[in-house]
Amino acid sequence: MEYVGTALAEMTMPQISPLAGEPIERADAERLAGVLKALADPARLRLLSLIQSAPEGEACVCDLTAPLGLSQPTVSHHLRILTEAGLLEREKRGVWAYYRLVPSAIATIADLLTPPRKRATKKAAR
Amino acid sequence: MEYVGTALAEMTMPQISPLAGEPIERADAERLAGVLKALADPARLRLLSLIQSAPEGEACVCDLTAPLGLSQPTVSHHLRILTEAGLLEREKRGVWAYYRLVPSAIATIADLLTPPRKRATKKAAR
Repeated sequence: MEYVGTALAEMTMPQISPLAGEPIERADAERLAGVLKALADPARLRLLSLIQSAPEGEACVCDLTAPLGLSQPTVSHHLRILTEAGLLEREKRGVWAYYRLVPSAIATIADLLTPPRKRATKKAAR
Repeated sequence: MEYVGTALAEMTMPQISPLAGEPIERADAERLAGVLKALADPARLRLLSLIQSAPEGEACVCDLTAPLGLSQPTVSHHLRILTEAGLLEREKRGVWAYYRLVPSAIATIADLLTPPRKRATKKAAR
């Protein structure tokens, strides 16, 4: 399985929404499934949640091992998968890399799963 | 991995949203990951999309094998996973079972992935 960092950026909503009223194309289904696979893991969901609720919305591996009860290599592995899927962004500062959520990526997935009628209501409300 | 049909029904949003500002609990993360795993497959995303865009929003296995280019047992396997995850509902009529989306299940996942501020705006717009 290949995670592509730009996967979400390449998606245009009307083409790929599984709920947009037109059947989704095979290539688009494969891209979206790749991003959903990155999300579909309990440790990675908890990581996203911990990073989101961290002070200033960012955290380094050093902050994340203890609350998850996982080793640093395991946490780093999950962070890499989330970053390659475009769900986290990574900034190196000193010896540590700091991670924060890419809110537009999460919002894109939420939108893709929202039927078109509701989506129109949501857009009008923004 | 276990798919539980009632998984989504048991979820209450403030507890389990990975983006709700509080870290997600381990058990909730496992439930949400299970449902996301059911979604995170290209054939299953295409099946959801085909069913959603079918006349009257429902389809039987007999309608789905040709567009997907998959055998009937394979399509039935994917439909079972989606049904057990609570994403599809199944009604037996005559020799065939007919499947339709459970819109509230999909909407719940979309909501879970939406940060709390946006969710408040969305709710106000409903």
